[in-house]
Amino acid sequence: MEVAVLGVGLIGGSIGMAARQRFGAEVSGFDADPGTLTEARAAGALDREASSVEDACKSAEVIFCAAPVQVLGDLARRALAAAPAEAVVTDVGSTKREISAALASEPRFIGGHPIAGAETAGVGGARAELFDGARWYLTPTERSSGLLYDRLQRVVSGLGARPEAIDADDHDRLMAGISHLPHVVANALVEVVEGSGDSSGGRLAEAGPSLRDATRVAGANPAIWGDIYSSNREALAEAIDTARERLGAAAELVRSGDAEALAAWQREVAGRRDALLRDAGAAGPLRRVQVLVPNRPGTVAELALSLGRAGVNIEDMALHPAQDMASGAVSFWVAGDEGAEQAAELARELGHTASVGD
Amino acid sequence: MEVAVLGVGLIGGSIGMAARQRFGAEVSGFDADPGTLTEARAAGALDREASSVEDACKSAEVIFCAAPVQVLGDLARRALAAAPAEAVVTDVGSTKREISAALASEPRFIGGHPIAGAETAGVGGARAELFDGARWYLTPTERSSGLLYDRLQRVVSGLGARPEAIDADDHDRLMAGISHLPHVVANALVEVVEGSGDSSGGRLAEAGPSLRDATRVAGANPAIWGDIYSSNREALAEAIDTARERLGAAAELVRSGDAEALAAWQREVAGRRDALLRDAGAAGPLRRVQVLVPNRPGTVAELALSLGRAGVNIEDMALHPAQDMASGAVSFWVAGDEGAEQAAELARELGHTASVGD
Repeated sequence: MEVAVLGVGLIGGSIGMAARQRFGAEVSGFDADPGTLTEARAAGALDREASSVEDACKSAEVIFCAAPVQVLGDLARRALAAAPAEAVVTDVGSTKREISAALASEPRFIGGHPIAGAETAGVGGARAELFDGARWYLTPTERSSGLLYDRLQRVVSGLGARPEAIDADDHDRLMAGISHLPHVVANALVEVVEGSGDSSGGRLAEAGPSLRDATRVAGANPAIWGDIYSSNREALAEAIDTARERLGAAAELVRSGDAEALAAWQREVAGRRDALLRDAGAAGPLRRVQVLVPNRPGTVAELALSLGRAGVNIEDMALHPAQDMASGAVSFWVAGDEGAEQAAELARELGHTASVGD
Repeated sequence: MEVAVLGVGLIGGSIGMAARQRFGAEVSGFDADPGTLTEARAAGALDREASSVEDACKSAEVIFCAAPVQVLGDLARRALAAAPAEAVVTDVGSTKREISAALASEPRFIGGHPIAGAETAGVGGARAELFDGARWYLTPTERSSGLLYDRLQRVVSGLGARPEAIDADDHDRLMAGISHLPHVVANALVEVVEGSGDSSGGRLAEAGPSLRDATRVAGANPAIWGDIYSSNREALAEAIDTARERLGAAAELVRSGDAEALAAWQREVAGRRDALLRDAGAAGPLRRVQVLVPNRPGTVAELALSLGRAGVNIEDMALHPAQDMASGAVSFWVAGDEGAEQAAELARELGHTASVGD
């Protein structure tokens, strides 16, 4: 398989290494910085240093855009223009609504977001194991080619990650809550404490771990986070507004001085946090869910999204086109009997014939 | 020296152990739970199991109230009523405004707050080393006896801690910002993410460390935190309001989508956090600051508070009353030449004669 990586920092470099080592891919790479490109080649991330985006993409089957969020839209467009008709183009940006909207009419573009790797690091930290066991979100749309989605999710699995389909808007709302909002809140905490004025640095440094922990991500890499906040501005601003509402209710409760009610609030939150962070794991052995589908764009993506929304994770997937190419079957492997039955039921709700096997 | 400990959980038990081992104190203890009292004695935290608060205090020179925040005021009052005229009574509660106001007319009460020990643990975790190197805030008032303040800060030093005088209101504002607000914000984050609804627990569990870290203290021990929030309601509600204002400004900035301005904000916050958490340490060897003072209540407390406000830490202290008992000298040991000169200058600003020696 021929893979192209556009941008060979920590994530792009690790993709190249894992693709070469894990499934013997032939990897072409391009980077705006020639020194980085040479370093990536020397580190074993690439087979070939391409002279341009177009050169890297010309015969690739899967193309990863791994540059900063800000430039990903343009980069993906150039890749799509240069790539063969049957190639799939994806990205690794941490927000998905903007790029998905910009490329909504492209059946060959499917957005992606691996939850692995500090964005700040360069190719020097790249390693084939970076994605092992990590969630890797994919954001197919109704225009996405089922065959290309199948190929992409297979490659992502091959890199060691666990792909999951999610709607781009849902992805950004999810990230706003679990990643971007915590960064904004950490910033605000620093501002509140710093603004209180009458406290020396030394005093704060020794006053226990709460503030240090709560502000660990405050002021994280400005260039990257400025872009992330900006590219997820809608969902993030909504999340901030919700946080302000919650804090308003908390201030009211605190002002009441009602220790019983405050203790009840703590108990409620403790239960919610447990539920949120509980590991889904241990669902059981993999079961196969076979679905008969019309062979048209978007069907597979629609199925994958439906399962993703319901919290059913697709551990593996295979397409079986019929001879006439107008219909076919798709197999999903899902952990546990319950998950498999749920997946089959979701497929039926979408109008397909579905059955659970081994 | 005779020490009484009222409430022998983790903190009270550790005070008893350290006082016995470090300066050979004779420790009497009382606890509402007779089993806990016996356990504390067996663990080496006490010399004597007292039969009541009054029995524990009857001949004590220093009395530590180490019960939950909610009952500390009443406990301290009973201790003051039962204690000898020359005893000092202190507490270990994590808020100080309420109890200081309630006991403002008592020259023998000086509030305290060691920054050590999880409030949830029992005497089973008590150890003589618990306070080693930990900050221990003391909140003397203008009514506080200088001799008793001197004794208390000496005992706290003897337990291994580093005492620092702070105004009770300043203490509570400081704690609101660096400890209580982070807890409230963590709760709010859990509510925002949990309220977003469309995300399964498993998905959140795998989505990176930001949320897990940011909500580590969410829903912490409800009984204790209900009391803490309640007893610090004014300062905490103000801190929450300030956080809401900061978040409002952040939402506006995010909505603007101005990646440059957002990056500038990140840079600014990063600098502020560094300044806040920078260790004050390495100020230099101890210098002695000698101050001639009138021998009246509040003078020493006023001096200690003035130094504390300026961020000058008193590492040790000695009182030298003159024969006529109407005037005297107090020596403070402060780290570094700069700190010592600053301390002397602060004493002069309060109308005293002050000099720096070795």
